[in-house]
Amino acid sequence: MENYINIYKETRKKIKAYGYMMWLMSWDRETEAPKASLAYSAKQFSVIQEELYAIESNPDYMDAIEKLYENMDQLEDHDFKVEIKNAYKDLRMIKMVPKDEYLAYGLLTQEGPHIWAEAKEKNDFEMYRPTLEKIVAFNQKLVKYLETDELKGYDVLLDMYEEGFGVKEYDLFFNTVKEDLAPFVLEVTKHKQRFSRKLTKGIFHIQGQKAFSEYLMDVFHYDRTKGVLKESAHPFTSGVSSVDTRITTRYHEDNLASSIFSTIHEMGHAIYELQNDPKYDDTMLHGGTSLGIHESESRMYENMIGRSYAFWKIHYPKLVEIFPKELKNITLEEFYQYINRAERSLIRIEADELTYALHVLVRYEIEKQLISRKLKVKDLPKRWNGLMSKYVGKKPSNDKEGVLQDIHWSFGSFGYFPTYALGSAYAAQIYQAMNKEINVEEAVLNNQINLINDWLKEHVHKFGRSKTPKEIMMIATKEDFKPSYYVDYLIKKFTN
Amino acid sequence: MENYINIYKETRKKIKAYGYMMWLMSWDRETEAPKASLAYSAKQFSVIQEELYAIESNPDYMDAIEKLYENMDQLEDHDFKVEIKNAYKDLRMIKMVPKDEYLAYGLLTQEGPHIWAEAKEKNDFEMYRPTLEKIVAFNQKLVKYLETDELKGYDVLLDMYEEGFGVKEYDLFFNTVKEDLAPFVLEVTKHKQRFSRKLTKGIFHIQGQKAFSEYLMDVFHYDRTKGVLKESAHPFTSGVSSVDTRITTRYHEDNLASSIFSTIHEMGHAIYELQNDPKYDDTMLHGGTSLGIHESESRMYENMIGRSYAFWKIHYPKLVEIFPKELKNITLEEFYQYINRAERSLIRIEADELTYALHVLVRYEIEKQLISRKLKVKDLPKRWNGLMSKYVGKKPSNDKEGVLQDIHWSFGSFGYFPTYALGSAYAAQIYQAMNKEINVEEAVLNNQINLINDWLKEHVHKFGRSKTPKEIMMIATKEDFKPSYYVDYLIKKFTN
Repeated sequence: MENYINIYKETRKKIKAYGYMMWLMSWDRETEAPKASLAYSAKQFSVIQEELYAIESNPDYMDAIEKLYENMDQLEDHDFKVEIKNAYKDLRMIKMVPKDEYLAYGLLTQEGPHIWAEAKEKNDFEMYRPTLEKIVAFNQKLVKYLETDELKGYDVLLDMYEEGFGVKEYDLFFNTVKEDLAPFVLEVTKHKQRFSRKLTKGIFHIQGQKAFSEYLMDVFHYDRTKGVLKESAHPFTSGVSSVDTRITTRYHEDNLASSIFSTIHEMGHAIYELQNDPKYDDTMLHGGTSLGIHESESRMYENMIGRSYAFWKIHYPKLVEIFPKELKNITLEEFYQYINRAERSLIRIEADELTYALHVLVRYEIEKQLISRKLKVKDLPKRWNGLMSKYVGKKPSNDKEGVLQDIHWSFGSFGYFPTYALGSAYAAQIYQAMNKEINVEEAVLNNQINLINDWLKEHVHKFGRSKTPKEIMMIATKEDFKPSYYVDYLIKKFTN
Repeated sequence: MENYINIYKETRKKIKAYGYMMWLMSWDRETEAPKASLAYSAKQFSVIQEELYAIESNPDYMDAIEKLYENMDQLEDHDFKVEIKNAYKDLRMIKMVPKDEYLAYGLLTQEGPHIWAEAKEKNDFEMYRPTLEKIVAFNQKLVKYLETDELKGYDVLLDMYEEGFGVKEYDLFFNTVKEDLAPFVLEVTKHKQRFSRKLTKGIFHIQGQKAFSEYLMDVFHYDRTKGVLKESAHPFTSGVSSVDTRITTRYHEDNLASSIFSTIHEMGHAIYELQNDPKYDDTMLHGGTSLGIHESESRMYENMIGRSYAFWKIHYPKLVEIFPKELKNITLEEFYQYINRAERSLIRIEADELTYALHVLVRYEIEKQLISRKLKVKDLPKRWNGLMSKYVGKKPSNDKEGVLQDIHWSFGSFGYFPTYALGSAYAAQIYQAMNKEINVEEAVLNNQINLINDWLKEHVHKFGRSKTPKEIMMIATKEDFKPSYYVDYLIKKFTN
């Protein structure tokens, strides 16, 4: 066993270093690399990727993982067991899927986004269809290759992104959304809210928005010695250790809310990883345990804290100080209404807090039907539009603002979307549990978000990937996941 | 042969990719990485470094290089021959130096800069002496290990940084400097020049300095799709290909000239590498052929173009536009005098164009004596101060502003300093040759620096590392290197 442990740990050291390099290249590419250099850097990236593949598929290493997995009971360290369990899971992909199919799929999903982008640009679903059909067909086969006694069908894919969450769990969640939330949303969004044109049509200089984002970094205690704020077309968080997790935001002169809530959202992701126990930095357990839990943190910071009345009660004056002319005569109340407006919309990434889950519901139902072969790719646009009408109450007038809007399927991600909605639901439950132990609103009003950070560190963040999402929910909230917290929270907030 | 060529090329592909990663890590570390992450990233870096070492010391690869070197006459491609010649040279370091000594020296020169920094901070040469003695002793031995029929003693080290330049060539150069330039400099710098306090004591807001650096990027046609301008404590250029060469500058509110000439200097380095023939991007021939030629480009852009009267005749109005209050009543003539003032100073990196070579002369004479064992490390401070008095006409009052000022020896660089002065001398000769074919002053006055870039591309830049410094000088100037161009240029400029 000693020998297998050594092989595993020596290889892990290399995998971490290669991972670091590839992370840095991606970060550089998204935020800074000169445009003309992208092809050159992609070439270097692929050489390193091959080197990493050789290391990960080394027979001694694969053998060590299998031996350690088979003799798990001889291992004492809980964290190490989790690592081996995860490594074994990853190994199945290499072992169960025929190599030629796997490589062909790799190529397909590299081309996919380019074909998708062009099809979207041209509003031409038929152009995208053959590629998407191949991708769906592979995922249908993949499910068969990877099925176990516990995981069947779509569950195989769902479990990759959210361990322990399959169709059974998601159905429970989405049924609550469908039955308790959807009718409420349709009612609330019947009438369009109106705001001062100063908010929706104003121009807010970038310099001021940048200053406010810097201010927010202090408010949320995002540690500048461990992070960086840059700009990119699509805001994201990119982390590699408890001492280095960077974020981006975007500034639009004509949209003040965009940079504010992007910055807060990404800080939520970043603070999660920065508050991982540092002991995980050299292991495979650094990071967020799942996409859903990750999204729960970013959404809690963005929506439940960042869009709360308490938050703006103390920070709105700062915003007015930066934009005195632009916000003249706009009251706190009006600003609050503006940042919490809810409306029926067609594009998921622009959807508000209230309607968001319904957009995801549409995708979940479609994926479930695609993977179980109940829906054909050619019938996708029609089904999409039908479900949008039904749940969101608004029908796309073309595929560009319908089924073609998201990139995810083009690179092969099925089972990913549901975690977006799950994150908000986790957040509501965690928030409620936290609020029993500390007075969250008071902390916000006293500008002490560090108290919130501390609580989340102890109950969610510090565990990194050493606990499953289900375990995290039990630790943080002392009960299993319950979607009702989420629906109750939204109904309460949007009834006011 | 086919087989050896394949091994070489396959390995080269990997070496390039690893080099790319290590380059990006260094760039990130110097310009952006959060402070708290530096130890973590250093750990990843050393893993990758080990991986690279394993690739470079692979027996098959080393064998391929030797076989190709021995059968060089069977190779047809000129560029490929140069690569093999260089690779063979690098190989000698691994083959001729006992591995344990090589590794011990590696550790020594990793610690060196830390010990040097502390000793400098405390103005305590004795603290640094034992380390420096070991470093010098290793270099004395290294010279013996690497000596060939052509290269003996200090020449071995000099040749590493400037192929074809040994004591004979440098003596010729520095004798001219000593005999023709030094007396002139002592005469010119007898009296301190005085300028408006507005220039030497003014405050120039960073925002304006940044805007002017951006303006300079356009003036010099530094292509933003292939480069980036950031900030760092010490300005530098960091390039990896003809499509990605980045620079940094620094902004001091109380020193307007600093950012301007740092930006121009680094653009000179960057444009050199960006104008390499792109075919070298995938080979070991991308980059500058030597430190001296590299420095010739940066100094030509900075001093001969950037500090010329013609340049400011057309760009000074822009500077005044940005700093109208700060530069009020400062004439173009006075600004020109200010940026070309010459004075006896103690610190090399702050020295002006006229006195710079004399600072380097001091270091050259000392290195020559150290490596040939004519000078002991313990006698260094005294010798330093004596030579400074003799050549620069000013004696340090302590070692901090004397022998302890430079970091270079602490990481084992002997033979590096002379290239700094050589660069300026190359520049004068190249400038003179260029001026025969295009009217440089007119190009500057017409804001057509692209014409200068184009000429340098054809006569210097495009060759990358495929030509030696001597070959470059012959191609660009149609004669061998002659130090008189440099001395003549300086005497003419500073006589006015």
